[in-house]
Amino acid sequence: MATDKRYKKYNRKMSHSYSYGTFATIDLIKSKPAQVECVLIHDKLDSSNQDRLKELCKSNNIEIKTNVNKVIERVRDKESCNVIGVLKKYDLELEHVSNHIVLVNPSDMGNLGTIIRTCLGFGISNIAIITPAADIFHPKVIRASMGAVFQVQFKYYSDFETYKNTFINHVFYPFMLDGGIDLKTAKLEDARNYSLIFGNESSGLDPSYSNIGTSIFIRHNHRIDSLNLAMAVGIAAYEFNHKQ
Amino acid sequence: MATDKRYKKYNRKMSHSYSYGTFATIDLIKSKPAQVECVLIHDKLDSSNQDRLKELCKSNNIEIKTNVNKVIERVRDKESCNVIGVLKKYDLELEHVSNHIVLVNPSDMGNLGTIIRTCLGFGISNIAIITPAADIFHPKVIRASMGAVFQVQFKYYSDFETYKNTFINHVFYPFMLDGGIDLKTAKLEDARNYSLIFGNESSGLDPSYSNIGTSIFIRHNHRIDSLNLAMAVGIAAYEFNHKQ
Repeated sequence: MATDKRYKKYNRKMSHSYSYGTFATIDLIKSKPAQVECVLIHDKLDSSNQDRLKELCKSNNIEIKTNVNKVIERVRDKESCNVIGVLKKYDLELEHVSNHIVLVNPSDMGNLGTIIRTCLGFGISNIAIITPAADIFHPKVIRASMGAVFQVQFKYYSDFETYKNTFINHVFYPFMLDGGIDLKTAKLEDARNYSLIFGNESSGLDPSYSNIGTSIFIRHNHRIDSLNLAMAVGIAAYEFNHKQ
Repeated sequence: MATDKRYKKYNRKMSHSYSYGTFATIDLIKSKPAQVECVLIHDKLDSSNQDRLKELCKSNNIEIKTNVNKVIERVRDKESCNVIGVLKKYDLELEHVSNHIVLVNPSDMGNLGTIIRTCLGFGISNIAIITPAADIFHPKVIRASMGAVFQVQFKYYSDFETYKNTFINHVFYPFMLDGGIDLKTAKLEDARNYSLIFGNESSGLDPSYSNIGTSIFIRHNHRIDSLNLAMAVGIAAYEFNHKQ
C-alpha cells in the first residue's frame, strides 16, 4: 500500500502504531527492532539526529523513508515532532515466574504510560490489563511511558476470572480504599510471586475483590478522597520492591 | 465590566482563574468562599446539580450567573463542562512551623496538580515554587489537583537563595539521581521541619544542591532513566510521612 494511504492518524483498529520523536523512536528500535516497519523522517529534522537514526536503522536493517513531510504532518500530534517510528503491533504472554501488576479497566492513557515506566523501574515488568481499558499501543501511552512500554510483557484479559485462573499460584493483593492491611506494615510471608491489583481511576475495585486475597490500603489523611491511580500503583511497586 | 468581556479564555496575566465542572467548583466554594467572584451556569446543567450549586452559593453569599451559555462555551476546555467557578487569585505565605515541598522550575501542569493532591494527602500542605515555573492557578493544575490546590499554602520565589534564607531553620533534603542516601533507609535524626527539594522534569537539580543538605535518591533499576517528577515527589512525601 502506498505510504500516504497506510499511515493515517492513529486509531486503535490499526495493526500498527507510532512512536513520536527521536528519543521514543530510538527506544523502540533498541527494544523491539523486529517490530519496526520503518522510520519516517521529516526534512526539518536536524542533521545530527538524522545521522544518528540512519546509523541505528542501518545496523538493524530498518527502512528509513524521507520525502514524507505531508504524512508526518498528518500523523504527528505536535509540530515539533519530526520523526515517527512505525511499529507493528504484537502479542505477548505474561511470565508465570514473575510478579505482576493487574489493572482493572484503566482509562487514562497518561496514567497507563506512567504506571508502566514506574513499575519497570521498580522491577515489575509484567502487566495484566482487564478490558475495557485504554489502548497500550496508543502513541500517548508510548510517550508517557518514555519507551518503557517496549520493555514490558503485557496482555489484555476480558475479565479478572480468566487472569486469576491462569495465575492461580500467584498471591493476590487487591488495593482498596477500605483495604484490611496498611501497605507500610504489610509483610510478605508468602514466597510465591504476587499480583498487585488496582481498580480504575474513578471507581476503584468493587467490594468482591476483598475476597480474592489480602486487601491493602495506602494510608493518607482525609483532606483528599483518594490518590491518583498512577501514584497509588507507583507507591505500591516501590514498597513491594523493598519488601522482597 | 460586562460579563462577556471580563470572562475570556484563561491566561496567566488575568487576576482571576476558573474551576471547570461541578465538583471542582464545589471544592472551590467550600475551601475558599471569599475568593469566589461568581459561578457561571450553563442551561444544559442538569437540575440536581443546579439545585446543589444554588444552595451552596446562597449560603456563602456568592452570585450565580445564568444566561451565560456563550461565555461558558468560550472559556471551558471540554464540551461536558457546564459550570465554571470564577476565582479571584490570591497570595499566600508559607508557614514556618511546617514541612515544605520545594519545586525548582516545574513545567508540567498535570504534574503540578498531582503533586499538590498527593502531598496534601500525605500531610505536606506548604509548597514553594521557584520560577520560572508552571502557573498554579491554571485551570489544568486546578483540575489535576482535584481541588487540593485550594487547601494548600503556596508561594513563588524568584530564586532558591531567597527561599533558603527565609526558612533557614528548615532541614533541606535535595532529591538527586546521584544523591548520597537511599530514601528507604534515610533517618530523620533532626526534629526540625524539613524541606523536600526537587528539580524540574527534564534536568533535575544541578549539582550545587548537594551542598545545601543531605541529598537523597530513590532507588530504582537502570531499565528507566528516572522516575516521573510527580511520582518521585509522591513517593518521597509518602515515605517521609511515615518517618515522622
